[in-house]
Amino acid sequence: MEYVIVDGEVLDRTVAKVDIEDRGYQFGDGVYEVIRIYNGKMFTGKEHLNRLVESAGKIRMKLPFSPEELESKMEELISKNELDTGIVYMQFTRGTSPRNHVFPAGDVAPTFVAYTRKVARPVESMEKGVRTILDEDIRWLRCDIKSLNLLGNLLSKQKAAEAGCFEAILHRGETVTEGSHSNISIVKDGVIITHQADNFILNGITRQKVLEICSNESIAFEERAFTLDELSSADEVFSSGTTVEVMPIVEVDGKPVGNGEPGPVTRNLQNLFKGEIERQCGNL
Amino acid sequence: MEYVIVDGEVLDRTVAKVDIEDRGYQFGDGVYEVIRIYNGKMFTGKEHLNRLVESAGKIRMKLPFSPEELESKMEELISKNELDTGIVYMQFTRGTSPRNHVFPAGDVAPTFVAYTRKVARPVESMEKGVRTILDEDIRWLRCDIKSLNLLGNLLSKQKAAEAGCFEAILHRGETVTEGSHSNISIVKDGVIITHQADNFILNGITRQKVLEICSNESIAFEERAFTLDELSSADEVFSSGTTVEVMPIVEVDGKPVGNGEPGPVTRNLQNLFKGEIERQCGNL
Repeated sequence: MEYVIVDGEVLDRTVAKVDIEDRGYQFGDGVYEVIRIYNGKMFTGKEHLNRLVESAGKIRMKLPFSPEELESKMEELISKNELDTGIVYMQFTRGTSPRNHVFPAGDVAPTFVAYTRKVARPVESMEKGVRTILDEDIRWLRCDIKSLNLLGNLLSKQKAAEAGCFEAILHRGETVTEGSHSNISIVKDGVIITHQADNFILNGITRQKVLEICSNESIAFEERAFTLDELSSADEVFSSGTTVEVMPIVEVDGKPVGNGEPGPVTRNLQNLFKGEIERQCGNL
Repeated sequence: MEYVIVDGEVLDRTVAKVDIEDRGYQFGDGVYEVIRIYNGKMFTGKEHLNRLVESAGKIRMKLPFSPEELESKMEELISKNELDTGIVYMQFTRGTSPRNHVFPAGDVAPTFVAYTRKVARPVESMEKGVRTILDEDIRWLRCDIKSLNLLGNLLSKQKAAEAGCFEAILHRGETVTEGSHSNISIVKDGVIITHQADNFILNGITRQKVLEICSNESIAFEERAFTLDELSSADEVFSSGTTVEVMPIVEVDGKPVGNGEPGPVTRNLQNLFKGEIERQCGNL
């Protein structure tokens, strides 16, 4: 049996349903997180749970559980499902009440849903690198909120998938923002460049961890917007995200990045990141 | 008993639930419509149902029912619920499948949900006019799609409600786009001005019907973006939408519109619009 949490209760997956007037279903009125699990342990769990509270605050939703309470619920779920390598997904919506754009009264509690899934590390892609396309960033102006309004992301990711690519790199005019489901960084003359954490990107936990590693290891980096021209003349490009860790990008819109192979800066970061995972969760 | 439709089946409202991995719930991956019911009859039903098909097409979703089939399902639901004055709400999502940004395989059918609700005509507000606030338009760049990604709209509407106002008038920089849940028009020197139907606004059925009335009655109008300055110096301002019909706006951000009373052009449109309703649905 696979267990999930719905409305705070641990249930069999097959009976996990929500009301048709849950505000998540009618408005996408909610926030979510995905946490990586290695050896049955959450990696950067606290950072994700803190961001969940932050995202909720940005849409003016108060979560009924503290990050510590959530952490222990997630640990229970991971253990009940005997998950080794995978993810735990969780979301809060602004509860169930008759459809109205205005927030419901204070006695309507958020709906909490969580489940786990087996997801292997994408070791082959991480070794060889992946292909990407470019796409216009048509999303809203609060991409810093990890919300359930993901239609823009889906449409871009779908285009990428149909082109046989892993990711769509999004740009507003000449400015690259991020990927449809990951952050994007370039490397030029040994310096890592990645969009600053503002309203145009989600400040990825993997992104933050990579920059922390750079600081500790004295690897040069700049947090600033870069252009399509800088992208196309970069020595290396990589994507970072919860399930993909540090993923080399070897092609953008049919054009090879550098010599078309994962570069040394990206490789080094992959290894350093793996070291960080092993410190928190044990050997991979 | 109140009836609803879930996944094509007519059910008791109290058991109407959807799976936690319905793509509507996790991504807002779907489209919807709200149709006004007067005297148990749908007003501009065909126009709404055609737009639903269009919205679905724009997010590359194929609906399993034709507008004609939907119309007859809606008629059945309205009749079963003995609805006189109200709305019928319907939405399609891209079905239920394990969470993945990429669209599910072709054998995953969209989920169809519909219900009715009693909603009186807001006659008092229509008589006296309503107050509004201004708010930045932070939504995505495909507002022409009537999608379930409504978080930006909710946040603006909530601000309006907290200010005791009916609507938030949205603007991108100096340009007024529309309201958080209705279209906005101004009147200057007898000419109605309303944003052109492009990717920045939803092309409201009431908006279209009002412009059709203007054409028929030789009332001057321009479909073009107008500025915040034009809004604040307008003779009249009104909102149009499915449940509110033609709604006079008498205050914007604390400042009266014109002399603070509904103006003659708006009043005339209200009456002409009421005539159109009565032609389709019988006396109000």
